[in-house]
Amino acid sequence: MNAALPRDLLPDYAPRPLPAAMLEALQARFGSRCSVALALREQHGRDESPFDVPPPDAVVFAETNEEVALVVALAQQHRVPVIPYGAGTSLEGHLLAVQGGVSLDVSRMNKILRVHAEDLTVTVQAGVTRNQLNNELRHQGLFFPIDPGADASLGGMAATRASGTNAVRYGTMRENVLGLTVVTAQGEIAQTGSRARKSSAGYDLTRLYVGSEGTLGVITELTLKLYPLPEAVSAAVCFFPSIDAAVQTTIQIIQMGVPIARCELLDANTVRAVNLHDRLGLRESAMLLMEFHGSPASVAEQAATVQEIAREFGGEDFDWATTPEARSKLWTARHHAYLSALQTRPGCRCVTTDTCVPISRLAESINASVREVEEAGIPYFIVGHVGDGNFHLGYLIDPAKPAERETAERLSHQMVARALALEGTCTGEHGIGLHKQGFLVEEAGEAAVALMRTLKRALDPHNIMNPGKIFRI
Amino acid sequence: MNAALPRDLLPDYAPRPLPAAMLEALQARFGSRCSVALALREQHGRDESPFDVPPPDAVVFAETNEEVALVVALAQQHRVPVIPYGAGTSLEGHLLAVQGGVSLDVSRMNKILRVHAEDLTVTVQAGVTRNQLNNELRHQGLFFPIDPGADASLGGMAATRASGTNAVRYGTMRENVLGLTVVTAQGEIAQTGSRARKSSAGYDLTRLYVGSEGTLGVITELTLKLYPLPEAVSAAVCFFPSIDAAVQTTIQIIQMGVPIARCELLDANTVRAVNLHDRLGLRESAMLLMEFHGSPASVAEQAATVQEIAREFGGEDFDWATTPEARSKLWTARHHAYLSALQTRPGCRCVTTDTCVPISRLAESINASVREVEEAGIPYFIVGHVGDGNFHLGYLIDPAKPAERETAERLSHQMVARALALEGTCTGEHGIGLHKQGFLVEEAGEAAVALMRTLKRALDPHNIMNPGKIFRI
Repeated sequence: MNAALPRDLLPDYAPRPLPAAMLEALQARFGSRCSVALALREQHGRDESPFDVPPPDAVVFAETNEEVALVVALAQQHRVPVIPYGAGTSLEGHLLAVQGGVSLDVSRMNKILRVHAEDLTVTVQAGVTRNQLNNELRHQGLFFPIDPGADASLGGMAATRASGTNAVRYGTMRENVLGLTVVTAQGEIAQTGSRARKSSAGYDLTRLYVGSEGTLGVITELTLKLYPLPEAVSAAVCFFPSIDAAVQTTIQIIQMGVPIARCELLDANTVRAVNLHDRLGLRESAMLLMEFHGSPASVAEQAATVQEIAREFGGEDFDWATTPEARSKLWTARHHAYLSALQTRPGCRCVTTDTCVPISRLAESINASVREVEEAGIPYFIVGHVGDGNFHLGYLIDPAKPAERETAERLSHQMVARALALEGTCTGEHGIGLHKQGFLVEEAGEAAVALMRTLKRALDPHNIMNPGKIFRI
Repeated sequence: MNAALPRDLLPDYAPRPLPAAMLEALQARFGSRCSVALALREQHGRDESPFDVPPPDAVVFAETNEEVALVVALAQQHRVPVIPYGAGTSLEGHLLAVQGGVSLDVSRMNKILRVHAEDLTVTVQAGVTRNQLNNELRHQGLFFPIDPGADASLGGMAATRASGTNAVRYGTMRENVLGLTVVTAQGEIAQTGSRARKSSAGYDLTRLYVGSEGTLGVITELTLKLYPLPEAVSAAVCFFPSIDAAVQTTIQIIQMGVPIARCELLDANTVRAVNLHDRLGLRESAMLLMEFHGSPASVAEQAATVQEIAREFGGEDFDWATTPEARSKLWTARHHAYLSALQTRPGCRCVTTDTCVPISRLAESINASVREVEEAGIPYFIVGHVGDGNFHLGYLIDPAKPAERETAERLSHQMVARALALEGTCTGEHGIGLHKQGFLVEEAGEAAVALMRTLKRALDPHNIMNPGKIFRI
């Protein structure tokens, strides 16, 4: 889909060769579930980021906590990198084997272990994907709301602190993981958290592992919060004369405390792209795609309030969908946005951004970024979880033109610098991975990054867990 | 209020003498803001826990981040314990100077630094109390919901991961702190988090410090989430034939997804006590005290649903309060519960519990605890944040009778063991402090506690930050 970026964008990492003794031990224990086939390795050394693939030296498919622990303990003994692998949908180079090592694939750990409908909790293995979970839960009248778009594994979603379209109402993985089973860098199996909704029992190990991008250990099981399927769900689109008008509407919705469940922005470029891709016939201007959850009365009330706010900012052509089919048609536009945008410039690749700012600064953040990209003349599109202050601007560049790549990187850096000046973050939901390490230092400051490095060194002194990600050691 | 417990309940801690050079340096820098007066030291070596006071060797009042950093850096140099002090309302011995050292009082860091009403965030110094903050915010139509009862400092509330009556709707300090300024054990000032609602930028240092009970550094500033004051607020009481009926009602409310803002249980003993204390004339049976926030229509709908559920379980005498005055009268019962209960047995002291279990197990958890305490014949009372699965049973014991103390400790341990068997926690909101260290190991397991110790050793290798709390090193 995306042409690969040249390897020179990656920092210079020293590969660590896989000792024959370790490979033999893995093969003896895992048989055909340990593979060195190139195609499989390359598939595991790739994610949705635009970097060239440095493949791992081997791929191991683990099926139990104990197997994960065994692989990590062996890797610790031989000082070999371990890269946890779930569904391969991360976006920031998290899965790239920049120092070689073993890709530890947990996708076969895909059992839903315990549904406690009466407590609104579920315990799953890390390889369960969010669609799998929701398909299983639907007949019990429950759902897990975090929706990053891709059908990611829940372990991976925890590892990158993912969020997505429902976060404005239900929070992110940070708020929705109650506890974890993790395999530490020493190959120990540890439990964090419990099934209680809250606890003050010691350090918050759960939140330390959520967002740690595989660098502190392997998440093997998760206990998650569930929610009753809302009695009523209603989706709406509304079109605006400008991005600014759509964003101002969003700001007002949030400031008034309307408990909106989803509030997504698509710019005119994106709408044009999905019209081409799916013949949706939508009006080609900035659009908000919204969803309301609650009792019928509450949903109607929320919708009326929002419609009134939108009208103040020139919002038009409100269109409603209350049946699942009609809703799913409306959401097609959002779900196909990325693919559709890529197809508007054949052969292009996409440099994606992920800044998130306090809601009142969202308009200036987006407006300035639009101005800059328009001036630079690079094709682009914007989608945003604007209710959170988070948006993604994709620069659609021609990989054969280094000048375009440089421009996109420069604009991306300007956007991050602006987000930080507005007291926001360089990444709302994708994580740091390989590409945003410089941004992390700009954002968190040397003192905080030093604390992070101290934690990493303490928990993984030989730097075997997904080395080279988040920061260099 | 509470008679002190004999020192023998505390483990054997080696005091570390305060070097004269350090005291001189503090006095030179802080003048009268550094004191060794016994009364002041004793006041700072005490909290709401029932332990005898080991006072710190000195008390220093810091007024800026830089002053806090200076004290910690000096303490690091001299290997002297530092115990952060806010409002002195913690419950588990957090403030006791078990190894001597300096009580670092941040109560004068009481400035509300920046209110961003348009983003629903506020940045405060750690000594600001929650009532101070809410008094300041009220005229802007905003509030900070976390209400642990006491007028605690926000820094202390973060340090113990506090919650209280509004947590069922708004979450705990875990969910409501966006970022912190902390002084590390090395005396460095670090920022964690930002003003963005979500972020995937590196390890979650914010959540690591929230709940760390002063053992990893000093929280000096906090950026918090705010909420618009609800358009409508309505409070209600309802009386039940048994605790079980009240709890079953709560379970049903939560399972149905009613967005109730507060759901507090008072048992018949507590109601009797507050009737005596405040002449409230309430019916002396188990009672739920509830609050609903939202639009007028939504509040009415929630209340109707809850009333119907309560009726199924024999709930009677629903009484409503919609004006602030009427609400505050209803809440008197809850706010005076602890004091009123203590007065029912003059000279008694209270051994308090804080278990929290998955909501479906709450009835059996409470029922068994009631059976045990009734059998033992010890006076008791129960209040509970039952919407979270969290309740406090207070054993009212005669400190002159060691047998009563032993019985209370045994029952408390049984209650914790039961909570853990039900996949809950030994502490929903008070923290581990001195008294629950054994429970922490039972709950989290050796592997998780080993991880916590590793973090502590990495961030505070000389164990100067509130030593002896959460676990022994």
